[in-house]
Amino acid sequence: MTARHQVVVIGGGFAGVEVALGLKDAACDVTLVDRRNFHLFQPLLYQVATGGLSPGDITAPLRTIVRGCKNVRTVLAEVDAIDVAGRRVLLRGAEPLPYDTIAVATGVRHSYFGHDDWERHAPGLKSIEDATEIRARVLAAFEQAERATTAEERAAWLRFVVVGGGPTGVELAGALGELAQHTMRGEFRAFDSRDARVVLIETGPKILSMYVDRLGERAIHDLEALGVAVWRNTNVEGVDDGGVDVVGPHGRERVPCRTVLWAAGTAASPLVKALASSTTAKQDRVGRIVVEPDLTVAGHPEILVLGDACHFAHTRAGQPLPGVATVAMQMGRHAAQLVRLRIESPERVKTAGDGPAFAYLDKGTMAVIGRNKAVARVGFGLDLSFTGFFAWLAWLFVHIAYLVGFENRALVLLQWANHYVTRHRGARLITEARRVGD
Amino acid sequence: MTARHQVVVIGGGFAGVEVALGLKDAACDVTLVDRRNFHLFQPLLYQVATGGLSPGDITAPLRTIVRGCKNVRTVLAEVDAIDVAGRRVLLRGAEPLPYDTIAVATGVRHSYFGHDDWERHAPGLKSIEDATEIRARVLAAFEQAERATTAEERAAWLRFVVVGGGPTGVELAGALGELAQHTMRGEFRAFDSRDARVVLIETGPKILSMYVDRLGERAIHDLEALGVAVWRNTNVEGVDDGGVDVVGPHGRERVPCRTVLWAAGTAASPLVKALASSTTAKQDRVGRIVVEPDLTVAGHPEILVLGDACHFAHTRAGQPLPGVATVAMQMGRHAAQLVRLRIESPERVKTAGDGPAFAYLDKGTMAVIGRNKAVARVGFGLDLSFTGFFAWLAWLFVHIAYLVGFENRALVLLQWANHYVTRHRGARLITEARRVGD
Repeated sequence: MTARHQVVVIGGGFAGVEVALGLKDAACDVTLVDRRNFHLFQPLLYQVATGGLSPGDITAPLRTIVRGCKNVRTVLAEVDAIDVAGRRVLLRGAEPLPYDTIAVATGVRHSYFGHDDWERHAPGLKSIEDATEIRARVLAAFEQAERATTAEERAAWLRFVVVGGGPTGVELAGALGELAQHTMRGEFRAFDSRDARVVLIETGPKILSMYVDRLGERAIHDLEALGVAVWRNTNVEGVDDGGVDVVGPHGRERVPCRTVLWAAGTAASPLVKALASSTTAKQDRVGRIVVEPDLTVAGHPEILVLGDACHFAHTRAGQPLPGVATVAMQMGRHAAQLVRLRIESPERVKTAGDGPAFAYLDKGTMAVIGRNKAVARVGFGLDLSFTGFFAWLAWLFVHIAYLVGFENRALVLLQWANHYVTRHRGARLITEARRVGD
Repeated sequence: MTARHQVVVIGGGFAGVEVALGLKDAACDVTLVDRRNFHLFQPLLYQVATGGLSPGDITAPLRTIVRGCKNVRTVLAEVDAIDVAGRRVLLRGAEPLPYDTIAVATGVRHSYFGHDDWERHAPGLKSIEDATEIRARVLAAFEQAERATTAEERAAWLRFVVVGGGPTGVELAGALGELAQHTMRGEFRAFDSRDARVVLIETGPKILSMYVDRLGERAIHDLEALGVAVWRNTNVEGVDDGGVDVVGPHGRERVPCRTVLWAAGTAASPLVKALASSTTAKQDRVGRIVVEPDLTVAGHPEILVLGDACHFAHTRAGQPLPGVATVAMQMGRHAAQLVRLRIESPERVKTAGDGPAFAYLDKGTMAVIGRNKAVARVGFGLDLSFTGFFAWLAWLFVHIAYLVGFENRALVLLQWANHYVTRHRGARLITEARRVGD
């Protein structure tokens, strides 16, 4: 009896989970490695950051997801390195994992463009802890405003700056506007929550630049109705405890504020950077690995890079695919097919790039702004875009349909229905790091 | 115009919230002080600790609760001291609050009977952070068992000790048994989750000692069906990283285990202790203030002590009232009535103890064990007790009826219905203290 083909999947995000599920009952043993014990539905993370949903609503235990795949095991561990020559994954505090095929789907992290000192003042939104940290900062800012003794101090606590006009920044700014204009109305005695101001800062001339111009313009209109000011063509030059320094169309300006949220830059993980240097794979500007058409790494048919960690430029326009959930999920399913092919017809995919090419089916993109506004673009080769309530409904159903686990899906839908009717946000907790003895 | 009567309420738990709501539109200004921004429904905290509910499901923002009470303001602050002579509450980092009447409802914290070093190894369950910390420890123990390389190591990770056979300990042990026997079944590859063992340790001869014996016996039967061993007449003599030392009917024993949870002792907060020494009020064994029949402190008609912080012994049996939510809520409503009386007829309640006496209406007590088992005792002067599925249903409806906020109530009920049908637990996250840059 020959040894079974060993597959290691690093990362339990959209791509990694699809690889594992796609290999159910295949003639291989799959090990899914993640440092967290849960899958995170990242597109709704901004709702946790603004108190609309609880962490448990947008996560599902990885073990539960792959429970039915008897050839898949889950390992909760930090990956220290990939030993490319020895075909082993080195784990912190556990035995190395040998592999015949490896799928690297470790996502991205924040990037502050060389200003790592800004992170302390301007947290980004990637993990559940980021979200609860941002939630605590936002809610505490309103509390501080209630206690403020001068008008300047109060205004600084009631000003929120969001840096980055992509979907995350737009959705976060819209949700903050909603919180101030509606949810918290009437709850403070020293000020009106509607006095809060949200500023969305974008370097380029457009927000939501991946959409047609009309949608970006509509998004600005909807954001302004929620008290969000959109500053385009504006660069952030400094972030500190007391505010943000920006340079925009009207010159340099100091914006006094106590809460800054970062939705601007991303960078590949150190693991991906290390992998690139030990394989001579090309990396793009933000450190993602440039893959072959079949998602493998040049010279390494046994290494697949998926999701946000990969730069896939084999598109008609030559533009790399965006770092969104649908791309990652489709890549994960493609990777599972490729692994099956490697097992069944090893002679067909001896060299990297030999496998069937990955083709992305673009079903569209959307972003939600506040309670019942959204912008959406329908894919499938159609050039259709729409806005407003129907875009919001479409957003809602598409996102909830993709939530892993029935419980989450049904309950999150009910919470949305309830938000819609009452504008309540039930998960408004200022929680803290572990405090033993409290 | 004379200055309005100033009321300060310390603590936004069951008692404090009822005082504030009971003073709606009264001729006074009310300041509700808490160091957290939310009210916590403590009876369901064990569900958060075992992944059944999310923190947001059992909390409600204090500001939302009192939004409709225009004479009530909420202050998020730590109370440093009560200046009894000067009638002021001293806050950390904020102006002192003068008062004409103060209601102290600060609850209790854990007590390790002089062994504070045990706390590190055996966290208690009082706050949301306690619950997510316990959840992380329990889930991580199963992960460690999956990675264990020896049978002894694995057994230690799969053994859970709960110290204290009151309602919290019983409910926690039952939920852990449920988790291992049903929820996690089939999710691990190196062991069967049903191999996990829960040990509930109680010093006295009975668990749930406030119930009639029949109920305690039934609870033991139900717990054993969930793989929980109940050890009575057993004292904990030591807790460390590798296990627990106990002395029981069969002598001294070492129990190797990696997860110990503390549900044994409580003690009054330092604020209550300080208040006692500056008022000459009597304290009981655990530091609670012994109050007059009208809930005031001897010699201080302007100071009320409520809920778990107070020792109320003016009962027919002479036994102090138990530290449960219904007692606290009824005390809060009584306190609000007393404050109204102080404002309207100040001459009637000049001296502490002059006010109308508090009388507790005992509606019964209950504890839930696992998915559909509970024990319940009906109050109202009847001596009725029941067990099993109907006790569980009663427990469910009484608890959910008391949850503050419609959203929480409806959604928590749905989650329970879903747990009941699927035994899923949706909030199984191992989260960590703030990790910037992740």
